[in-house]
Amino acid sequence: MAALEALALPGIPEVRPGDDLAALLASAAGDDLRGGDVLVVAHKVVSKAEGAVVALDGVRPTARARFLADEHGKDPRAVQVVLDQSASIVRAAGGVLICRTRHGFVCANAGVDASNAGGPDRLVTLPADPDASARALREALPGRPAVVISDSFGRAWRHGQCDVAIGIAGLAPLEDWRGRTDAAGRELSATWIAVADEAAAAADLVRGKDAGLPAVRLRGLERFVTAEHGPGAGALVRPVEEDLFP
Amino acid sequence: MAALEALALPGIPEVRPGDDLAALLASAAGDDLRGGDVLVVAHKVVSKAEGAVVALDGVRPTARARFLADEHGKDPRAVQVVLDQSASIVRAAGGVLICRTRHGFVCANAGVDASNAGGPDRLVTLPADPDASARALREALPGRPAVVISDSFGRAWRHGQCDVAIGIAGLAPLEDWRGRTDAAGRELSATWIAVADEAAAAADLVRGKDAGLPAVRLRGLERFVTAEHGPGAGALVRPVEEDLFP
Repeated sequence: MAALEALALPGIPEVRPGDDLAALLASAAGDDLRGGDVLVVAHKVVSKAEGAVVALDGVRPTARARFLADEHGKDPRAVQVVLDQSASIVRAAGGVLICRTRHGFVCANAGVDASNAGGPDRLVTLPADPDASARALREALPGRPAVVISDSFGRAWRHGQCDVAIGIAGLAPLEDWRGRTDAAGRELSATWIAVADEAAAAADLVRGKDAGLPAVRLRGLERFVTAEHGPGAGALVRPVEEDLFP
Repeated sequence: MAALEALALPGIPEVRPGDDLAALLASAAGDDLRGGDVLVVAHKVVSKAEGAVVALDGVRPTARARFLADEHGKDPRAVQVVLDQSASIVRAAGGVLICRTRHGFVCANAGVDASNAGGPDRLVTLPADPDASARALREALPGRPAVVISDSFGRAWRHGQCDVAIGIAGLAPLEDWRGRTDAAGRELSATWIAVADEAAAAADLVRGKDAGLPAVRLRGLERFVTAEHGPGAGALVRPVEEDLFP
């Protein structure tokens, strides 16, 4: 029977800039990582290990940041950090800045987050190149599992957030059934499945946001795991020119 | 350790209008459904069992349907079925109609689908009241597991589709951490987690689209399962007046 098992790795300590995250993850996993596994890692520990943390003290907000901060009741320095991470602002409404990040992801505050930042007046940003981060982790982990780096994104028309993949190494981002048909020859409706996003979502179900469980091992997705690192999460980004909701 | 197990139920035959879907699911599950389980069921078998199938022969397209069909290269009768299911058209571009359904869901073609419809020139629509369908299944299933009815939705800024919950009975649709803080007192960023959508996504990972595996049993989500049926998937719909992407 087709089955999937998701297991949160216990015992990962608070991560600090410069920590060897792969070693921390390997230790938490014991000997039990295999080549067909998918290790989903919350981006925050990746960002912190890589030093993608900004101290508000050193930020000088521009006029635009001050204007947006005033309009939306935010700290102008925090808005400046968001702007620095953004290629564009998609919507600014009701205290929420929905941004297109430099990577192309559309999400609130360009993924910039103050919680669990390792100190007051600090903000964690997304990794500079999450696909590269995923590849580096994969190469350094025993067993060489596929690696997905995840973040929690809101959705345009639905309440709540779901975890999605922002960095991928060794997992097919999408399963492409386009052009395939049912037994009667009718084209299938769900034909391009965002496997890596569904894997990130599955992983999120087994860790509380506050429980110090940033890494989840998924077993049962071997058919989507590839020897090469593959195209990464960039393949999940809909190009601006195809965007119906700019 | 926090863990989740997803298992696709084998041996569910082609479902036809009037079939006792709960009996088919119970038989496929053997004796092995418990009160803390979540059974995720692809909407198509629910729709078909309920007779939510439209024969194109009997559809008379309006002028609006003929106009849209002409503009987007579609069968005017199929467009009429989509319009009948829609409260509004959010975007019509490149052969795709993105609709707000009468339930409030925003998705391509209002969820209307020709594949695996049980015959040529037939279209399957979403269930009329997917939360009621979920409640009825839950009451009829041995062990009274929570029930999620799922569909595959595209996303505004990301390629591919993820399964989401369109009907829910007995599972918290959202886990609300708003107002809770990290150890340093900073508000958590991911504070309102779309548990039921993540459950639908996890379930989708263990069934091929074409493999006749419409139902997946999730075990390990007991903390989100409730004795009462709860608010249903309606709680996941962002109201039109809060919509930043109308």
